[in-house]
Amino acid sequence: MQALAASFFLQMAVILAACRIVGWLARRIGQPQVVGEMIAGVLLGPSLLGLLFPETGARLFTTETRGMLYIGSQLGVGLYMFLVGMEFRTGLFRERARSAASVSVAGMVAPFALGALLAPWLIKVPGLFAESTRLHEAALFLGAAIAITAFPMLARIIHERGLAGTPLGTLALAAGAIDDAAAWCVLAVVLASFGGDSGIAITAIGGGVLYAAFMLTLGRKGLACLGRVTLRDGRVTPAMMAVILMLFCLSAWFTDHIGIHAVFGGFILGIAMPRGPLTAGLTEKLESFTVVFLLPMFFTFSGLNTRLDVMLDPSILLIAVVVLIASTLGKGVACWAAARLHGEDNRTSLAVGALMNSRGLMELIIINIGLQMGIIGRELFAILVVMAIVTTLMATPVFEWVYGRHVRKGAPQPVNGIDG
Amino acid sequence: MQALAASFFLQMAVILAACRIVGWLARRIGQPQVVGEMIAGVLLGPSLLGLLFPETGARLFTTETRGMLYIGSQLGVGLYMFLVGMEFRTGLFRERARSAASVSVAGMVAPFALGALLAPWLIKVPGLFAESTRLHEAALFLGAAIAITAFPMLARIIHERGLAGTPLGTLALAAGAIDDAAAWCVLAVVLASFGGDSGIAITAIGGGVLYAAFMLTLGRKGLACLGRVTLRDGRVTPAMMAVILMLFCLSAWFTDHIGIHAVFGGFILGIAMPRGPLTAGLTEKLESFTVVFLLPMFFTFSGLNTRLDVMLDPSILLIAVVVLIASTLGKGVACWAAARLHGEDNRTSLAVGALMNSRGLMELIIINIGLQMGIIGRELFAILVVMAIVTTLMATPVFEWVYGRHVRKGAPQPVNGIDG
Repeated sequence: MQALAASFFLQMAVILAACRIVGWLARRIGQPQVVGEMIAGVLLGPSLLGLLFPETGARLFTTETRGMLYIGSQLGVGLYMFLVGMEFRTGLFRERARSAASVSVAGMVAPFALGALLAPWLIKVPGLFAESTRLHEAALFLGAAIAITAFPMLARIIHERGLAGTPLGTLALAAGAIDDAAAWCVLAVVLASFGGDSGIAITAIGGGVLYAAFMLTLGRKGLACLGRVTLRDGRVTPAMMAVILMLFCLSAWFTDHIGIHAVFGGFILGIAMPRGPLTAGLTEKLESFTVVFLLPMFFTFSGLNTRLDVMLDPSILLIAVVVLIASTLGKGVACWAAARLHGEDNRTSLAVGALMNSRGLMELIIINIGLQMGIIGRELFAILVVMAIVTTLMATPVFEWVYGRHVRKGAPQPVNGIDG
Repeated sequence: MQALAASFFLQMAVILAACRIVGWLARRIGQPQVVGEMIAGVLLGPSLLGLLFPETGARLFTTETRGMLYIGSQLGVGLYMFLVGMEFRTGLFRERARSAASVSVAGMVAPFALGALLAPWLIKVPGLFAESTRLHEAALFLGAAIAITAFPMLARIIHERGLAGTPLGTLALAAGAIDDAAAWCVLAVVLASFGGDSGIAITAIGGGVLYAAFMLTLGRKGLACLGRVTLRDGRVTPAMMAVILMLFCLSAWFTDHIGIHAVFGGFILGIAMPRGPLTAGLTEKLESFTVVFLLPMFFTFSGLNTRLDVMLDPSILLIAVVVLIASTLGKGVACWAAARLHGEDNRTSLAVGALMNSRGLMELIIINIGLQMGIIGRELFAILVVMAIVTTLMATPVFEWVYGRHVRKGAPQPVNGIDG
């Protein structure tokens, strides 16, 4: 077993180095850290390291250490979604309800319409979807993959630019939050219905709905008590930390067990948490290790599954281009149009479209679930990885060009954490 | 793979619950949390859960999830030793050099003398040591196992009672630090020489000495730069966190790779770190997750290897009693006598002896390494687990009785983190 520990530590050193180096390069050209880490993960996989130095790649990422990488990834994205859930403010919607409603509806309807349009074509291409995937599942999955937004990245950009109280800030935050929540719900339905056994689907959908309902009512009340205890103690004690992490594990286990995914458990628990010293303390104590140590494991695990060489096939490359255009139309352009129609000025509308179009880490989480559950194949996975990276790369320059340079109050703040 | 994630989350929820419940019970009777968690780990293993509900135990801790538990444990104890290293103050020794020297020499000479006395007897009992363990290795390993001190627990008790500047505080901290460092060195030598191949031994000893020398000179200077960067930034940035975690992984990998153990890599790196905002920030960001989430994995992994039913054999039970007495004589009594001989009053000397005699988590780390490297067998492992738990259980009441109640300034502060 000691050899296992040694290779784990070596592997982690390489992963952390790769993520930091590529992340640093990304920040040098004005991109957020998350883009760098997404690319670093792909580079560590069969698309570069495995292609150039197959032996090194195989020695570094053995079958055994891949299991560790998988568990570390699941823990990482689960905790990350828990942290994201704690930052979610449902009150945002009310503040700017009508614009937000039209932008978020556009950001949902257009992606699912495009998903429905593309699915009949793509499902016939061998290797994109699993044999057992049915047309409506393919359409819904594609729709969710197009509809997802890099909500945490969007929130970070808005806070860093001091836009949190502005029309743009409120609009983008509210619409992004609603669309993300909707996309996760649709994904949960797809996961629940996948496999065809109606008993499994009922457990998953019914269990998921009941669990969410329970957590957001009684669960929220129970958690509020923990919030009061923290207020009294003046800090998050080790005992409180243990209770929260235990609840997190139970929540992740439950949603995994009923057939949706651990990320939902983390996310719902995060939303149900009482805002205040407890959430602030938990973020302080969990965010750094999650983002700096665990998420790079996820990027690498995802990258090990990404074979960019499938793009050498012209028909796959064509599909990739179509998917990329459809994603940008279905999200960025649709949200811009909805904001314009609702009377927002062109600059604000373009900025909203650019922010909503970036998908970041959230897209990787969704498509990794799709791959792991056997809904999509490696070709479509690679296509959607490229879509995720390109739409995330586009966001910052477009935002800077149409909006950022007009409102910036000093030097641009490079985004340093993971915000995808 | 998804089933693997689900069982990991379930397993962690059970582990965290067990550690907190038994830890809470321990604190109710005035014991530190670490004793509770040590016992919780044993209860989750074949000594209780596996005995009463073998099927539940086997379903909860499968071969596959045991691998995860192992890696999580290694990461946990590695990071913990890194945190302990950062708390180490070599300057302590100078402040009270002569008493500290005699106590620490007594706390080293007596254990190794007893180890040398016991080894010829114990090595003949089948199952205690591996067949390939030689007499001097057995003696040194036993000596180190008796000599180790729960340094972090000792430090926490002294700080919480406000004894940090007192003769007792300085004396116990200095002597504990020296003895622990010495015991780890001896263990490194045992690990290095074990296996018999002199090439391996030379790599391990030479590599370890060179690495420690490098880290404590040039390495310390390099790390001091990182300390200055943190001072300038005003906080530990994600990039800094990533660099430190990468250095930690490299250090753990290197010491694992040359044949000593990952904990040394963590510990040496911790000692070499510049004290200040960097170490304070790292402790803030790493301690909670390490202590609350990762260390319980270690206690459980250790507990899964502990078969207390070997004590049903009267000859094993006799050995356990002898080892327990020898450990208390060789550490607690020897340190008390040294302090007395050096002119400390009886109360201070008894308190020093009680604190030095507790072994806590440190003992579990040493004996798990011994088991994993094949130096000791399951019977001696179980005996030393019992010795670790009993000597740690003894420390607080003895300390309270001879010293604590005379100096306590208010209600006793229950020790809430892990300090063993």
